[in-house]
Amino acid sequence: MIKAGIIGARGYTGSELVRLLNQHSGVEIAVITSETLAGKPFAEVHPQFLGIIDLELESAEKISSHNLDVVFLALPHGVSMSYVAAQSDAAFRTIDLSGDFRLTSPEVYTEWYQKDHTYPDGFEEAVYGLPELHRDALKHTRLAANPGCYPTSAILAVAPFLASKSIWTDRIVIDSKSGITGAGVKASATTHFSNVHDNFKAYGLKTHRHTIEIEEQLTRVAGHQVNVQFTPHLLPVDRGILSTVYLRPKGKMDDGRLREILSLYYQGHPFVRIHDLPVSIKNVRGTNFCDIYATYDPRTETIIVLSAIDNLVKGAAGQAIQNMNIMFGLPETTGLELASLTP
Amino acid sequence: MIKAGIIGARGYTGSELVRLLNQHSGVEIAVITSETLAGKPFAEVHPQFLGIIDLELESAEKISSHNLDVVFLALPHGVSMSYVAAQSDAAFRTIDLSGDFRLTSPEVYTEWYQKDHTYPDGFEEAVYGLPELHRDALKHTRLAANPGCYPTSAILAVAPFLASKSIWTDRIVIDSKSGITGAGVKASATTHFSNVHDNFKAYGLKTHRHTIEIEEQLTRVAGHQVNVQFTPHLLPVDRGILSTVYLRPKGKMDDGRLREILSLYYQGHPFVRIHDLPVSIKNVRGTNFCDIYATYDPRTETIIVLSAIDNLVKGAAGQAIQNMNIMFGLPETTGLELASLTP
Amino acid sequence: MIKAGIIGARGYTGSELVRLLNQHSGVEIAVITSETLAGKPFAEVHPQFLGIIDLELESAEKISSHNLDVVFLALPHGVSMSYVAAQSDAAFRTIDLSGDFRLTSPEVYTEWYQKDHTYPDGFEEAVYGLPELHRDALKHTRLAANPGCYPTSAILAVAPFLASKSIWTDRIVIDSKSGITGAGVKASATTHFSNVHDNFKAYGLKTHRHTIEIEEQLTRVAGHQVNVQFTPHLLPVDRGILSTVYLRPKGKMDDGRLREILSLYYQGHPFVRIHDLPVSIKNVRGTNFCDIYATYDPRTETIIVLSAIDNLVKGAAGQAIQNMNIMFGLPETTGLELASLTP
Amino acid sequence: MIKAGIIGARGYTGSELVRLLNQHSGVEIAVITSETLAGKPFAEVHPQFLGIIDLELESAEKISSHNLDVVFLALPHGVSMSYVAAQSDAAFRTIDLSGDFRLTSPEVYTEWYQKDHTYPDGFEEAVYGLPELHRDALKHTRLAANPGCYPTSAILAVAPFLASKSIWTDRIVIDSKSGITGAGVKASATTHFSNVHDNFKAYGLKTHRHTIEIEEQLTRVAGHQVNVQFTPHLLPVDRGILSTVYLRPKGKMDDGRLREILSLYYQGHPFVRIHDLPVSIKNVRGTNFCDIYATYDPRTETIIVLSAIDNLVKGAAGQAIQNMNIMFGLPETTGLELASLTP
Repeated sequence: MIKAGIIGARGYTGSELVRLLNQHSGVEIAVITSETLAGKPFAEVHPQFLGIIDLELESAEKISSHNLDVVFLALPHGVSMSYVAAQSDAAFRTIDLSGDFRLTSPEVYTEWYQKDHTYPDGFEEAVYGLPELHRDALKHTRLAANPGCYPTSAILAVAPFLASKSIWTDRIVIDSKSGITGAGVKASATTHFSNVHDNFKAYGLKTHRHTIEIEEQLTRVAGHQVNVQFTPHLLPVDRGILSTVYLRPKGKMDDGRLREILSLYYQGHPFVRIHDLPVSIKNVRGTNFCDIYATYDPRTETIIVLSAIDNLVKGAAGQAIQNMNIMFGLPETTGLELASLTP
Repeated sequence: MIKAGIIGARGYTGSELVRLLNQHSGVEIAVITSETLAGKPFAEVHPQFLGIIDLELESAEKISSHNLDVVFLALPHGVSMSYVAAQSDAAFRTIDLSGDFRLTSPEVYTEWYQKDHTYPDGFEEAVYGLPELHRDALKHTRLAANPGCYPTSAILAVAPFLASKSIWTDRIVIDSKSGITGAGVKASATTHFSNVHDNFKAYGLKTHRHTIEIEEQLTRVAGHQVNVQFTPHLLPVDRGILSTVYLRPKGKMDDGRLREILSLYYQGHPFVRIHDLPVSIKNVRGTNFCDIYATYDPRTETIIVLSAIDNLVKGAAGQAIQNMNIMFGLPETTGLELASLTP
Repeated sequence: MIKAGIIGARGYTGSELVRLLNQHSGVEIAVITSETLAGKPFAEVHPQFLGIIDLELESAEKISSHNLDVVFLALPHGVSMSYVAAQSDAAFRTIDLSGDFRLTSPEVYTEWYQKDHTYPDGFEEAVYGLPELHRDALKHTRLAANPGCYPTSAILAVAPFLASKSIWTDRIVIDSKSGITGAGVKASATTHFSNVHDNFKAYGLKTHRHTIEIEEQLTRVAGHQVNVQFTPHLLPVDRGILSTVYLRPKGKMDDGRLREILSLYYQGHPFVRIHDLPVSIKNVRGTNFCDIYATYDPRTETIIVLSAIDNLVKGAAGQAIQNMNIMFGLPETTGLELASLTP
Repeated sequence: MIKAGIIGARGYTGSELVRLLNQHSGVEIAVITSETLAGKPFAEVHPQFLGIIDLELESAEKISSHNLDVVFLALPHGVSMSYVAAQSDAAFRTIDLSGDFRLTSPEVYTEWYQKDHTYPDGFEEAVYGLPELHRDALKHTRLAANPGCYPTSAILAVAPFLASKSIWTDRIVIDSKSGITGAGVKASATTHFSNVHDNFKAYGLKTHRHTIEIEEQLTRVAGHQVNVQFTPHLLPVDRGILSTVYLRPKGKMDDGRLREILSLYYQGHPFVRIHDLPVSIKNVRGTNFCDIYATYDPRTETIIVLSAIDNLVKGAAGQAIQNMNIMFGLPETTGLELASLTP
């Protein structure tokens, strides 16, 4: 039994980790922490867990007493790094769900996050936690940097075509649409019901931090510099990201070839499903799947790829558990075999 | 391993049974049927199951070849009764999710459903499948009549106060609000997005069939005739029923006493949760819980009870599996330990 | 041309007043104020007005320079009263959209609003601004206390039956469901998208301030003390209140008689529409209508009344303009002839 | 007073025409037709008009008796053309809201609509009813072909940059997201609440008929062949289209220059608003505005243009009235000065 700690209980990532780990046959949730809510029952903060989770929230200071095997950091970026630094000699392994160790260097981090990085050494150790690209490295790491939600959706849609050298690497357009939980649990004008409901808009144009995360990973896959035009939008739904990606093929292309490239690339990767029809976010809600559909438009010589994930599962907590399974030698799907809640 | 068949694959009840049974450790889904879709893969009809369920849909005629232990009838009322009749000598036990055997007699059925009943004998055998009221009878029955969604929500809110003789039995008002999946998978003006979204209305005033189902069960609990004013409304959400119930206490009442009555009545019933704050439908979404909150208003001498369920789970498929667990001697919660998908 | 000032530009009531007054043929919006946003263009705060409204926000201190005929106070309760006090000798007439002068006395105000009242004299002058009940008094008042949204919906549903002595005055149950704009523009856990969307819950049980407002007005209509059981709920929509009201007739009753009572009571009142089918909130969205449907259930001897309004229009800004029309001798419907935005 | 007839009352376009024409100071709605509902009161079919519109629906055969000045065809494509043919000698002018005369020739029509065209002569006469591009030609035409909703949104976003020769004409990507009313009033799996709510997906990839409409108009503006990659998506909202457009500048570009190009092109066009911040669909809901925002990303040398319209107003009924105003010499904004219903 893996003993797990969850640092940061208040947000959606924290509660989603609890939802999923609670039904994981190989994990015991030993401790959940919150500095501001320590002492309260977890089920008081998240009443959906009444009768399911009996733990009281503790301060993170106390986690050393729990003899943990793995710690999930469900903290904002900028906060996570200090926990990683403090735990660099700990016996447990760490899965960081923040953005603090996803990029390749502290310098890039500072440029895009407008913030100094206080634990540059972490970059040496961290493995980018996208199992479909880095499964082997994840097996042995002590620190997994769990990907951002948009990057998960975008990279999985583009990587197979870069890896197979099938597309040009300029003029990649990634038009992404996300549910509002991506903006977090905090009340703000952004998350006010009446600003979201019956509405739709783009935001973060040209500057969203996930842009560089996508570019760094795709550059690595391509073997040379890749830039992308990434535009996020806010959907009036709780969960889900659909990315519509526009790519230009290098040579002849057709739907059969697209399918072949995808199937080959994702062979042995249980959470990527290739569909024959356009995908939708509702079909992955609550699950760790990334659903992909690709088609070629000969009129315009453009490949269109659609990818759908649940931003809180494959885009956060589920992928973190997938990483944990890999790090601890469990079957990759353990605890993640759920079908979507549809409708 | 219990071998289960699901008759009727197209609707929400059918797909919800598959979602839940798929993660039930003691059940194997042996066959799923659809007369109109036989031959198609189930995952083509419900694409969220791609990679999860490999079964092809069959005609119900073929179920005898599967050596089943239990059959779930996920059929419209009026259709179910003929399957029950045909299978009256079968080796398997049956859980009927339609309204065909929920009432006490064919006469009452005909009055409220405006339809003749073709298998009156079934009423002798059928046990009303609300485990919190009929657990013992369910253990031995061959035919469980799974309750309606509104009645589940309403009966669980009122029964404890009738059983304890704490309330008057006239002037019971049950004001219920349901998500749209209660209206089924069929496209109609009722389920058209633009008629539901951003909208709210009452329907079925004075004539909804669930009225008599509620009254018959409450009458049984009370030991004498109980009538209720039941008004259903349509919420612009997929799932969930919240019932607001108004009751008049017979003697002195306070919140402590209400809590006591509820706790006592639901002792040993794992799916009813008593809350200290008003309940909400989102906290039970996807789960088999019925969340209840009660408070007393001394100004008006009225008890207000709020109960929340997921109409597709505790109001349909989940309760059916709870019944199956009881009928087969499994722990009642097997396969139903999920936390809600929140948010 | 009536010169109007709007005090309080930030909230939904303020912007809704601007939306409606902008198309009122007899009104010029002379000034809109906000203490915190003074100096900013109104259309920067509410970008939907770009190209429509050119005014800059001013401090309320400056309104005396505008030679106003009428002032709308779109302020929180507790704040409004000081403006009313300060303007008691002003040349303009005032329509207060807060709760500060809706009740009958400062004592009752303090009891239900948990706050001292600093301008008790205002109660002498204020007329409760529900034109269907107080049209004559409104013609001559200098201070209209615009009703709350729930009370508008509830009183219009019940008053005709009290006025005609057709119902018992105890055991009145008012089960109301409101869109989230009733909770205001401020970001909070209550208004967070993911707490509202796909959700439904009751709140403010037994203590909501609108209870006493409803009771005082109904008591006045009945001629003796009326108490009501009022339970508000939050709908996952922006706008709209549907109240489901349960009443007990004194003598024989049927649907024809209900219709007669309603038609008689609302004769000459252009904004109350009596329907033959259950009403819905979408059909009044954006309009000043109150749609009413009533039916009698002989099984339970209960009258069910459904009333639907847009909480921001008939429940706030529209009713304020209706009051203004009456106070200034204009046709009551001027500027309010809009059909609903459906779908 | 212009006497107007509306052919086709059942759909959203028909009821939206009534909503808007009803408050148009220069128009009298003389007749509304429906073949299937003739004889019924219009307000029975669309109950939001109770007390507002008293007309009974008539058969279209009777319109000649009404001495009409203008007829709006709110009919499906394929049906409209026969009405246009039949009325080719009528005294009234016609505004066709279907797709039957939007394209340049019957051949192109047949290719994209998979249907023969029975009135090819209409193409000679028809003027494409996008006032911002064809205002002068519209003044004198007897037949305006009202644009599709997506094309309105897309053409207005791209045309200024083509007209000013600022962009390359290949690799234009138009990623559009529309509310569900675009799919019409008819109940279907596409419009079933539970298939739309909490969901998001692309559809009609590579084959949507609006593609050719966009291309033909942009080709005309550019003076040479323009192809576009157009991808429509379905939003879980009633109304609104947001198009995200990706363009490549020919030379140096910056945000100031983009603003200049847009302002110049839309000078004197009252319904296009240029914004300094990303636009949203809620801010145009119920209005005839097209809100546009453009920004340049020097990292990728890409122009991003966002345009937002209400698909039922600027994308259908509102634009039809704008066309009527132009055709009859009225101020272009008459009857269309509404601010959006926000929130």
